[in-house]
Amino acid sequence: MEKLLQKIIGECYPYIQNGKVATYIPELAKADPNEFGICTISFDQGTNGFGDYEKSFTMQSIVKAIILLRALEDKGESEVRNLVGVEATGKPFDTFNYSDQDLKSEHINPMINAGAIALCTLIDGKTYQEKFQRLLDLTRKIASNPNLNVDEDVYTSEKATGNKNRALTYMLKAYGIINEDAEEVLDCYFRACSIKVTSVDLARIAFVLANKGKDPITGEKLFDKKHAKYINAVLMTCGMYDGSGEFAITVGVPAKSGVGGGIMAIVPNRMGIGIYSPALDSKGNSCAGIKALELLSRELELSIF
Amino acid sequence: MEKLLQKIIGECYPYIQNGKVATYIPELAKADPNEFGICTISFDQGTNGFGDYEKSFTMQSIVKAIILLRALEDKGESEVRNLVGVEATGKPFDTFNYSDQDLKSEHINPMINAGAIALCTLIDGKTYQEKFQRLLDLTRKIASNPNLNVDEDVYTSEKATGNKNRALTYMLKAYGIINEDAEEVLDCYFRACSIKVTSVDLARIAFVLANKGKDPITGEKLFDKKHAKYINAVLMTCGMYDGSGEFAITVGVPAKSGVGGGIMAIVPNRMGIGIYSPALDSKGNSCAGIKALELLSRELELSIF
Amino acid sequence: MEKLLQKIIGECYPYIQNGKVATYIPELAKADPNEFGICTISFDQGTNGFGDYEKSFTMQSIVKAIILLRALEDKGESEVRNLVGVEATGKPFDTFNYSDQDLKSEHINPMINAGAIALCTLIDGKTYQEKFQRLLDLTRKIASNPNLNVDEDVYTSEKATGNKNRALTYMLKAYGIINEDAEEVLDCYFRACSIKVTSVDLARIAFVLANKGKDPITGEKLFDKKHAKYINAVLMTCGMYDGSGEFAITVGVPAKSGVGGGIMAIVPNRMGIGIYSPALDSKGNSCAGIKALELLSRELELSIF
Amino acid sequence: MEKLLQKIIGECYPYIQNGKVATYIPELAKADPNEFGICTISFDQGTNGFGDYEKSFTMQSIVKAIILLRALEDKGESEVRNLVGVEATGKPFDTFNYSDQDLKSEHINPMINAGAIALCTLIDGKTYQEKFQRLLDLTRKIASNPNLNVDEDVYTSEKATGNKNRALTYMLKAYGIINEDAEEVLDCYFRACSIKVTSVDLARIAFVLANKGKDPITGEKLFDKKHAKYINAVLMTCGMYDGSGEFAITVGVPAKSGVGGGIMAIVPNRMGIGIYSPALDSKGNSCAGIKALELLSRELELSIF
Repeated sequence: MEKLLQKIIGECYPYIQNGKVATYIPELAKADPNEFGICTISFDQGTNGFGDYEKSFTMQSIVKAIILLRALEDKGESEVRNLVGVEATGKPFDTFNYSDQDLKSEHINPMINAGAIALCTLIDGKTYQEKFQRLLDLTRKIASNPNLNVDEDVYTSEKATGNKNRALTYMLKAYGIINEDAEEVLDCYFRACSIKVTSVDLARIAFVLANKGKDPITGEKLFDKKHAKYINAVLMTCGMYDGSGEFAITVGVPAKSGVGGGIMAIVPNRMGIGIYSPALDSKGNSCAGIKALELLSRELELSIF
Repeated sequence: MEKLLQKIIGECYPYIQNGKVATYIPELAKADPNEFGICTISFDQGTNGFGDYEKSFTMQSIVKAIILLRALEDKGESEVRNLVGVEATGKPFDTFNYSDQDLKSEHINPMINAGAIALCTLIDGKTYQEKFQRLLDLTRKIASNPNLNVDEDVYTSEKATGNKNRALTYMLKAYGIINEDAEEVLDCYFRACSIKVTSVDLARIAFVLANKGKDPITGEKLFDKKHAKYINAVLMTCGMYDGSGEFAITVGVPAKSGVGGGIMAIVPNRMGIGIYSPALDSKGNSCAGIKALELLSRELELSIF
Repeated sequence: MEKLLQKIIGECYPYIQNGKVATYIPELAKADPNEFGICTISFDQGTNGFGDYEKSFTMQSIVKAIILLRALEDKGESEVRNLVGVEATGKPFDTFNYSDQDLKSEHINPMINAGAIALCTLIDGKTYQEKFQRLLDLTRKIASNPNLNVDEDVYTSEKATGNKNRALTYMLKAYGIINEDAEEVLDCYFRACSIKVTSVDLARIAFVLANKGKDPITGEKLFDKKHAKYINAVLMTCGMYDGSGEFAITVGVPAKSGVGGGIMAIVPNRMGIGIYSPALDSKGNSCAGIKALELLSRELELSIF
Repeated sequence: MEKLLQKIIGECYPYIQNGKVATYIPELAKADPNEFGICTISFDQGTNGFGDYEKSFTMQSIVKAIILLRALEDKGESEVRNLVGVEATGKPFDTFNYSDQDLKSEHINPMINAGAIALCTLIDGKTYQEKFQRLLDLTRKIASNPNLNVDEDVYTSEKATGNKNRALTYMLKAYGIINEDAEEVLDCYFRACSIKVTSVDLARIAFVLANKGKDPITGEKLFDKKHAKYINAVLMTCGMYDGSGEFAITVGVPAKSGVGGGIMAIVPNRMGIGIYSPALDSKGNSCAGIKALELLSRELELSIF
């Protein structure tokens, strides 16, 4: 397995040149585009990694999967579903997703910023400090890594420059979708995006989602099976931004990418994959990362179709 | 003339029933829908009023004409034009006016909220207190009424509930159209919208615009002739929200309405008109007010076409 | 006057280089970009022309004003208004002008293709041959030129390549706005666009519109005064495509341009202007023509604002 | 298995009342909303059916999957991919799917009308008669039913009323995406939509797609494995119109619905399902059919997530 990962990293390395690290958040612009790591966890092969798989980076949009899970666990499927729809929007990640019409819950989904921000309000907790702590605790538990924490520099940078997210949040308020204090909700969201992980952490989270919520080692139920399916289904239809359709064909598994350069891919009942390579294509997905998943999927027949 | 105004008010009174007072700002919802006043000022007939023409109400969007004038006077046509376009958007007054594309200056105009908010940043003044004071002073000067002031209740109400305007302002920041502190810019804009006037004040402001910037009594130049034409042209193409095209046909003069129930109409070289009737149609224009202008235009052949 | 026109042509000639002749209809691509003519007709100065003001070209979108007039005369304001709205769309001339929503009459106006095509169905006549003949006869009458005719090559070229107009027409049918045979309606529209005129013809048509429908020489009523105002108002708000707002500020009179390179400008109660210069800007308006109107307006104070 | 199908039909029967048969094509309006049938084919249970599973109806949009397959087999993945994108549009099935921008291949996908119409041009064959015959032959082969044929009344009805599809086709031509004769392409598409099948036929087609292109009985390769995955992936992300996201969560398998009342669902490596119940929800999907798939998926754990 490790040999396969090594071969794949070798073959995909040139694709780094097709991308650029994200620059819209100044702190992300500091990433080294040449870093490239991959980690897989499966029942039959255990944990395998190659390259910069122990380098840490911020989750960014990947945390949307955890926000959705936290909201599902705290409030249940129907309350989540009422607040945030599940249809692919066919729009970029930061889209306002409407033209003249009123903004409605059905116009957003948990994988676009407006949807993820709205879902932060459904997390249990009296304060947004408490809500965020519950989110961080859940991430640590699924990743089986109690040391996960926020990258304070990225968080501060996001908070200082996140005006599109501010605009989205005030739109949610203007249309009555959320009623809470905009800056508090945003603070929770910006912190969530800034949680630092490695490819190993992502592979482990993906593996629990692939294993329908059960700890793959202890067999302990970490969250509801139904919620794993809900999340995997949403990732399949809109986890890779505007590239979700292409990804379904070439890789064929649920996955979520983040502008920090990470991709988390879930092979149901079989494998969790974490990748890191911060040079992004025009849609915001890791160039080399997507190519690596394509090769891995072909090599191991991972597609669920 | 007064008889004509009386007759028009009588004929248009029933149209009040087709409308409703604005409710999206709680304080505006307190307006009495049955109030209806009209005032005209012209060289040959002087000042004439009928009905509730001395009742005061807040300018709301009508102040956009003054914000535009203040910016033109302070920074000149080309700087204003670079920041905010002049094309009709075919969109409601609070529209985001774009779909997926980047927001650009050419997508906004001075008569939609985003454009008016952006223009507040062009007013001279070290602080937003100073900027607003310059705007208020200009309004007082053109209205020839040093007592004009902000309705503090409406201002507080707008500020508390203006989330769509907040969203617009953060969008302007996100796309680099403005760089200033969102809440300060908005404070200036909310104050401006809350300036209290009567139909007489509006008629007087309109008369100065009709008279190309010169005080109709003293002949003093209050502002640049070029700027009067700029404003009148913008009002002709987009002063009445989504009803601008209809209004051009039925009335045929530049005008600006506000959700406070006021309409200011400019008959170039001839007359200024102020109307107040707070029951609005679905486009945000005063129902009885528009009807009154239609009759007045027909009666006096006001159309410039 | 002729001296002024000569001076203006001289000053505006360099602006030709900023534009390109239309190429989307192959036949139009053959126009000579260096041709530039202007003609004015007014009560005090009579008819004056300079440059290529006797060169002929096809009306293209300028004919939309005549289609609107023909429909108004044949069916009256309210039937016209019910079929085609009057609001500026803030969209290019060939826009579909909607997103997901149903297409409605209020989404179109007489100056965008969909609106003009729909209005062809309102012209009296048993066949589309008859309808077109009525349109041509009206054009000849207002232009006071019985020799006006269709440019068969342009007509054939438009018909062969007008797939966007075909798409628009089928959309109008799909949404029940029109029910007639698409190809017959389009044939009438393509013929109308291909009527050949000179700057003199345009100036004369404009002068009648400026004179509220009366023949300026004989005083004969050629059409209803109300309809002249309707058309002038619509031209003011959306006659110059996406450049209508800019044009209102810089020139300040109702006008209509066509991709054939013509502009017809109406100075109410005063003057008719025809211009020809086929190099177009990105919005589809004649570059040198717009500049010439700007200078002429400044020189003679033509703006109605 | 048959008992389970009987139970499911019983439980889902009341959902028929939530829907209405399609009326936009007059001939479809004649369908009996009370018909309801289901058929499953799997390796372990063979073929099972209940209710009106032998009633025939027209494929409508379900044939889009076969058009895509035919194009993939005739021209290969890259040519198909260049002509028609694969991203979910977040738009209804008959959408124009753009606003002001140019229409591009990436704005359409094989499951919206514009995409399916465009793909008809990629089918091999000198004439559109030949192209359609190749499509019908492929449908017959996969369905293992040489008697499949066009419902001439529905075909004639579609052809007479399909103006939205005509508009879409002329748009494709206007933007150079296709260059062929619009009416010929449409004729092929309308015929394809009018192919009559039963739930058994759909189950059988689905089973071959689930079996990666191999005949489940003879093992014969009917089409390329890669193409089965391509189609299943596209169906997963946009096979159920605007309800694709919801369907991924509640059912969790690739599927395609048609306004004729059919749904074809593919359980990779395991089962093919055909359903017929013509009462549709507002998104154009069979009400009772979707509910039946939901129950079946829960009962048999069909979700691939």
